Amino acid sequence: MTINSARLQQHFEQMSEIGKLGETGTCRPTMTPVEKKAFELAATWMLDANMTIRIDSFGNLIGRLYGTDPSLPVLMMGSHLDSQPYGGRFDGVAGVLCAIEAVNTLVENGIKPARTIEIVSFADEEGWRFNKGLFGSRGILGRLEDGELQRTDKDGITREQALIDFGCDPTKFKESEYPAGSIFCFLELHIEQGPILDLARKPIGVVSGISGPLWLTVKMKGMAGHTGSVPMHLRKDALVGAAEVIVAVNEIANQVRGAETVGTVGTINVFPASRNIIPEEVTFTVDLRDIDHSRRNRYEAQLRARINDIAKKHGLTYEITEDTNSEPRYCAGWIKEIIHQQCARLLLDAPELMSGPFHDALALSYACDYGMIFVRCKDGISHNPLEYASYEDLALGAEVLYGTVLDILSNKN
Amino acid sequence: MTINSARLQQHFEQMSEIGKLGETGTCRPTMTPVEKKAFELAATWMLDANMTIRIDSFGNLIGRLYGTDPSLPVLMMGSHLDSQPYGGRFDGVAGVLCAIEAVNTLVENGIKPARTIEIVSFADEEGWRFNKGLFGSRGILGRLEDGELQRTDKDGITREQALIDFGCDPTKFKESEYPAGSIFCFLELHIEQGPILDLARKPIGVVSGISGPLWLTVKMKGMAGHTGSVPMHLRKDALVGAAEVIVAVNEIANQVRGAETVGTVGTINVFPASRNIIPEEVTFTVDLRDIDHSRRNRYEAQLRARINDIAKKHGLTYEITEDTNSEPRYCAGWIKEIIHQQCARLLLDAPELMSGPFHDALALSYACDYGMIFVRCKDGISHNPLEYASYEDLALGAEVLYGTVLDILSNKN
Repeated sequence: MTINSARLQQHFEQMSEIGKLGETGTCRPTMTPVEKKAFELAATWMLDANMTIRIDSFGNLIGRLYGTDPSLPVLMMGSHLDSQPYGGRFDGVAGVLCAIEAVNTLVENGIKPARTIEIVSFADEEGWRFNKGLFGSRGILGRLEDGELQRTDKDGITREQALIDFGCDPTKFKESEYPAGSIFCFLELHIEQGPILDLARKPIGVVSGISGPLWLTVKMKGMAGHTGSVPMHLRKDALVGAAEVIVAVNEIANQVRGAETVGTVGTINVFPASRNIIPEEVTFTVDLRDIDHSRRNRYEAQLRARINDIAKKHGLTYEITEDTNSEPRYCAGWIKEIIHQQCARLLLDAPELMSGPFHDALALSYACDYGMIFVRCKDGISHNPLEYASYEDLALGAEVLYGTVLDILSNKN
Repeated sequence: MTINSARLQQHFEQMSEIGKLGETGTCRPTMTPVEKKAFELAATWMLDANMTIRIDSFGNLIGRLYGTDPSLPVLMMGSHLDSQPYGGRFDGVAGVLCAIEAVNTLVENGIKPARTIEIVSFADEEGWRFNKGLFGSRGILGRLEDGELQRTDKDGITREQALIDFGCDPTKFKESEYPAGSIFCFLELHIEQGPILDLARKPIGVVSGISGPLWLTVKMKGMAGHTGSVPMHLRKDALVGAAEVIVAVNEIANQVRGAETVGTVGTINVFPASRNIIPEEVTFTVDLRDIDHSRRNRYEAQLRARINDIAKKHGLTYEITEDTNSEPRYCAGWIKEIIHQQCARLLLDAPELMSGPFHDALALSYACDYGMIFVRCKDGISHNPLEYASYEDLALGAEVLYGTVLDILSNKN
């Protein structure tokens, strides 16, 4: 193995101390002092690998290893250091730390590439704080949507304010955008976050594509009243309606046993939230994903029809907002080919698989070719403090990433 | 009419300015500076009616009109000035203001009763802030339960701290308790909070009893995971389970069309509340009420069985806490009789009806005879800023209350 697995492990151990939750969890929300601390730590490692560092106006941490030919589009790698509010130690972190290890190994081996290499820890990949993710990776490509800066977190802080508090200048977004053609390709290593590799007993997988999510926010409105006196048949209980929709989301996603469809309601808020007031307004989020895009569209239509029926039945009004609607995005064949070769070199039998979760690579796919390496995670558990990937598997992943970078830099492509 | 309806209306109008929400709503949480302001305003009116005033260690505001024979147990009246977070102008307020009007009228008419009269604005009748109500009225009777001071509101403030912040001394509860036999009877006027009087076009009703609620808190626990990757059949989604329970509560309460059963889930909280994490833990409240106590018990058993089945089906664990379990408590026949006579004197045809909502009178029923007067409220809407009772109806209610007090004081009983 060419990479330094002991150093890589040490980096994981040091990073997991920042925003530590219990023994094995992480809470490192985007654009907070906790994420800033993680940036500072990663920056020291980037400096050790001869990289220059900066935080751009979107809140991305970017390390750059200058190539000998600055006219060449950059080879970009990365992932994110922000975490879920109740997350693990590897999601996102693996992609940043393994990329740093790969560059470190290049430098230690005296390799001076013509092409500039950049490693990015993207801002707000997770998306839970402002209910929309991939902020930094969409930002650098000029793909933000209207109103994104006005989105608020649960404390009412706007994304704009959070950026300013983080030390960024939202009026200078343009200066941080990458012009078309300036990124040659994008590589991301990530833990699988699903059970396929673990069930197949394979440490490494080659990603074939990302089946992006449909994210909806549903608001249902009825009529408040006293829980002790309003007869059942006169009620317009928004929570009863919402509960029927949550059951419907689960039924719709379960209709084909064993299919890749997943449907989830992860958050719900009731107004006025008193135990003796009939709920007047309920807001909840829907997350619907499928590898088969046309099936996902059919299911979305089914869900919208069910919401309409349920609202009518309970005398509710409703509003559905589409927060994110991604189509599946496939990895570049030539990059998959290189990753397969690198796995073969290490005698790894690496299966190809689609990614249910989205990643920063989904945003990058609109600007350049991309490839992804998956590392096995125990029982497929992620977005949970119990998330676990072994340092042996992560080192294998870093080695595959290093070999892939070397191959791409060797200019055969 | 003997009472001063113009003055009464003015008092309502002044009180509705305190904690005003929109044009017609009120948000006056218990044990807050807003409730303190309401106490101060009501206290000025009590002083005008020759009463002495104090706030006891439970946070009750108590006005006292000394009788000529201090050895007689007191005639107590009252209700509450705290409101729901999204409440109206009349719930609770009517009972305090009409009682003050009745005492004012006594004094203006030069009546010097032998029996001492007290008017109480009870602390935390509503119960939403600490998830358990009737705090002040249970407090003065020594009926608080273990752990009540450690209950917390949504900001983590304990009831104990809230009391101290309000200026009360929780170590002096004993001094504020009423010894057995020291209360002769209790009278409470309240808006109906249901549609019966409005549908019958009757301004005043005579309450026959209060069908107390069963209040449960249910916590269901599953397993967090990534919404994009955990296959549906491997999930333990606590919110899907909770949603099925909410649907079940609604079905159980609806099984006999037109029955007086009501069942509601008013609050729900999800952990970790991220749109791309499968809910790990969900906590929600259940409010189940029925005039028929044995039917309510049957329905409770049905609900517990359904929760057990649903938890099993989704691989969840659960915990059910009983916060409140009240049996129906009936009004004293002799007080109902006096209220009927007073209604007849005013040529009012006043129907008798049970109260679905509970009131401070429910707590007092364990210490003395009690009677309640209901005032019609528009469309039965309450616990809602749209709650409305006309000043004409409220004046009629105050007049009935005044006549009832006079009759009780006249010593025929």
